[in-house]
Amino acid sequence: MVQTPAKFTIQNVLIPTDHVYAFVDVQIVDGKIAAIAPHLNVIGTAIDGRNKLLLPGFVNAHTHSSEMWQRGIMSVLPLELWLAELYDFAPLDVEKVYLSALGTAVETLLSGGTSVVDHLVLIPGQELETIATAVRAYREVGIRAFVAPLIQDESITAGIPSGESAQTHEPYFRSTAATLEIIEEAVRQFHRPDEGMNILVAPTGIQLCTDALFAGCIELSDRYNLCRHSHLLETKAQEKLAQEKYGCTAVAHLKRIGYLGDRTSLAHCVWLTDTDINILAETQSTVVHNPLSNLRLGSGIAPILKYRQAGVNVTFGCDGASSNDSQDLLEAIKIGSILHNVTDLDYQHWITPKQAVEMASLGGVKGLNLAEELGSLTVGKKADLVLYDLTNLSLLPRTDPIGLLVLGRPSHVVNSAWVNGKQIITDGKVITINVDQLRQELFNLSQWETKRKSQTVAQLELHYRQVMGL
Amino acid sequence: MVQTPAKFTIQNVLIPTDHVYAFVDVQIVDGKIAAIAPHLNVIGTAIDGRNKLLLPGFVNAHTHSSEMWQRGIMSVLPLELWLAELYDFAPLDVEKVYLSALGTAVETLLSGGTSVVDHLVLIPGQELETIATAVRAYREVGIRAFVAPLIQDESITAGIPSGESAQTHEPYFRSTAATLEIIEEAVRQFHRPDEGMNILVAPTGIQLCTDALFAGCIELSDRYNLCRHSHLLETKAQEKLAQEKYGCTAVAHLKRIGYLGDRTSLAHCVWLTDTDINILAETQSTVVHNPLSNLRLGSGIAPILKYRQAGVNVTFGCDGASSNDSQDLLEAIKIGSILHNVTDLDYQHWITPKQAVEMASLGGVKGLNLAEELGSLTVGKKADLVLYDLTNLSLLPRTDPIGLLVLGRPSHVVNSAWVNGKQIITDGKVITINVDQLRQELFNLSQWETKRKSQTVAQLELHYRQVMGL
Repeated sequence: MVQTPAKFTIQNVLIPTDHVYAFVDVQIVDGKIAAIAPHLNVIGTAIDGRNKLLLPGFVNAHTHSSEMWQRGIMSVLPLELWLAELYDFAPLDVEKVYLSALGTAVETLLSGGTSVVDHLVLIPGQELETIATAVRAYREVGIRAFVAPLIQDESITAGIPSGESAQTHEPYFRSTAATLEIIEEAVRQFHRPDEGMNILVAPTGIQLCTDALFAGCIELSDRYNLCRHSHLLETKAQEKLAQEKYGCTAVAHLKRIGYLGDRTSLAHCVWLTDTDINILAETQSTVVHNPLSNLRLGSGIAPILKYRQAGVNVTFGCDGASSNDSQDLLEAIKIGSILHNVTDLDYQHWITPKQAVEMASLGGVKGLNLAEELGSLTVGKKADLVLYDLTNLSLLPRTDPIGLLVLGRPSHVVNSAWVNGKQIITDGKVITINVDQLRQELFNLSQWETKRKSQTVAQLELHYRQVMGL
Repeated sequence: MVQTPAKFTIQNVLIPTDHVYAFVDVQIVDGKIAAIAPHLNVIGTAIDGRNKLLLPGFVNAHTHSSEMWQRGIMSVLPLELWLAELYDFAPLDVEKVYLSALGTAVETLLSGGTSVVDHLVLIPGQELETIATAVRAYREVGIRAFVAPLIQDESITAGIPSGESAQTHEPYFRSTAATLEIIEEAVRQFHRPDEGMNILVAPTGIQLCTDALFAGCIELSDRYNLCRHSHLLETKAQEKLAQEKYGCTAVAHLKRIGYLGDRTSLAHCVWLTDTDINILAETQSTVVHNPLSNLRLGSGIAPILKYRQAGVNVTFGCDGASSNDSQDLLEAIKIGSILHNVTDLDYQHWITPKQAVEMASLGGVKGLNLAEELGSLTVGKKADLVLYDLTNLSLLPRTDPIGLLVLGRPSHVVNSAWVNGKQIITDGKVITINVDQLRQELFNLSQWETKRKSQTVAQLELHYRQVMGL
């Protein structure tokens, strides 16, 4: 494995400043940014920054790595039915979990991400093995990882509103207590923030979790200083369900039970009221915007401009590859920025490329309670850095480099990437794992398919259409 | 220049069939598809199709090539003000037109396109030279080109509704008759459909064109059998303007003056009424959907699902690179498909990946009156073909190849491409021009910039905000 030594100096590199760009040298010592200024002495290895742009690494702030196995083939369905199909064909061996975690990390890194929040689907009966496998994969690649084991304690049918009908649901196969024990054990075994490996509490969302599960997660979060993650109001159906379940909005309920806060990041947030938005602002919760997934599943357009105006921290995620169907963070940032221009005629509210970069970097780490340590080109912060090749055709002709990066369709533009000062990408290639071998294994363990038939979708569809008035 | 001979056989390649996929051999003779079946004899050169997908080439059905010079730097503005900034800094030398036409062709080809409709901005006083230059660039690359010189006969300020105020506008610098003469001369010199080079009549749109200009274009179109192109109702401001100008919708007016028809393609079509939609269906006009541009400029979401339900032919364009800011056709196809899922709760109306591929290929050539000759894998049709590498990481694991291609974020997946049977891309590289040299020239003729100040935007902004109620 080729590694740049712990000390290095990037020379003559372009960085954004408050109003313009500057050419500077950047010294990295012991995994941290030691100095940023023109004409510094070379400390350690010299790295040629000419015709390159240096930015803090982005955060892929919400994904489900094992969904990579079903990308491309999932039917064109809304979340509730899509989820039924997804689970009918979910991969059930840890070897696949390993490979898709590698794939997720590689695609995230090659599109400017240095951190990933993996809301990890657990193989029933092999929960700790699933977590251990993802942890191993992320350690091998060297990406900063936030493994958020996806837990619930209600069955999938409970996630669809009852409407007029009386619905009964199978009990979930595992007890709430047993689920919480798994998470606590995972924390003991794998939560090593200093090594770039973090465990989060991550109930999937109000649609499939009891208050007891949320309470247990809050307790673990407080005891072990863990960040909190969850889906929130991704679909109109979930908005209905919250009213059925609590008689109030999901946000009001989560506030009441104490789940919100400055260590809490919430994926999607499409169907919030203005009052809900104010609650997110007050509690300093973070919204993770997954624009591609919200379009693909027809969930809606999250009111991101309203969040920003209310002072809510917003960042971006790819969401799982079955609802995207990629892990290209630059694509999520682009669409997550321009999508909202059609929701507000006043262009003075629109997101600029520079703001989008800050949302993707500093906004991402804020939601993980790491804004003091990461997320900007600041002396003293950890060196999670990405160097973009500005001579790539997709970034030419030379205009505004960040405008090109965010609004263009950059492809193969990441020249180098470092996590904690350790080099992960050199000359456009991930050097910590063998990507060709990964491709071969993904190829070998799959086959071209066309239509599949999900039994659960067949069972649920009629009820879903009735409840949603279709 | 490396070229595959006029005869070749692609062996063991995956193609889509009505319900599934099939492995076949495809023989190409004299620029046409001669046979498609398993286990054919090899005619001419054998091409290895294993682990590859063959599709008809897509059409980049609306772009403005010279906008490439300003991609990344254009302010975050709605169309009317954005256009003012664009024109304040438009490139004014034909060398730049040449390079951006090459760049547009290369990015289109590398994302699955084999045809491009270039609504070409003309340099004032050098109109024919501009057209000649773009024609030369497209001939050199070998892409099938539809050069649509962008003409108008009213000044840019006339494109903004007057509202309550009385606005006067400078007369346009060139007469309507002189403009039509330029187009006719371009047709005489460059319109060679058999050689893959076509000239279109292309008034920019009702917002900046008199009826006399439309009438002249219709006359030329009929006389020389030219296709017709135009922008149509891209913004809410244009909808207002049409009412001010005609007292009816723009579509009703274009029908009245006879501009619509089965050789007419209309870019954007965001602000149409249900009656307008029926007129497009009746007249067999084609809608060119430019989803990224419509988001970037905040123009709105075109009612594409309604068009499809009404039987209107729809295809995709990248639009100019200043409003996108790329020429990646696969991105336009993806976003142009999934964007509409948020406009209709009923997922049975949503666009499937297979439908998207047909819209991008057959839909594109229909609008150019070439559906008999191009746009599908059909024996007898011209060989405008693209071969995708299914072992690329972005297309793994193996699931549904077209689902991966349309819904994923494929990058560097085009292995080979042919136009009229002539090979343009081999092993992922454009072989007809020197792309490294193109990059170097784009680099040399540009510089990294930040904020510019558009005088025209400053003049127009207050009036725009008043008229739009901002």
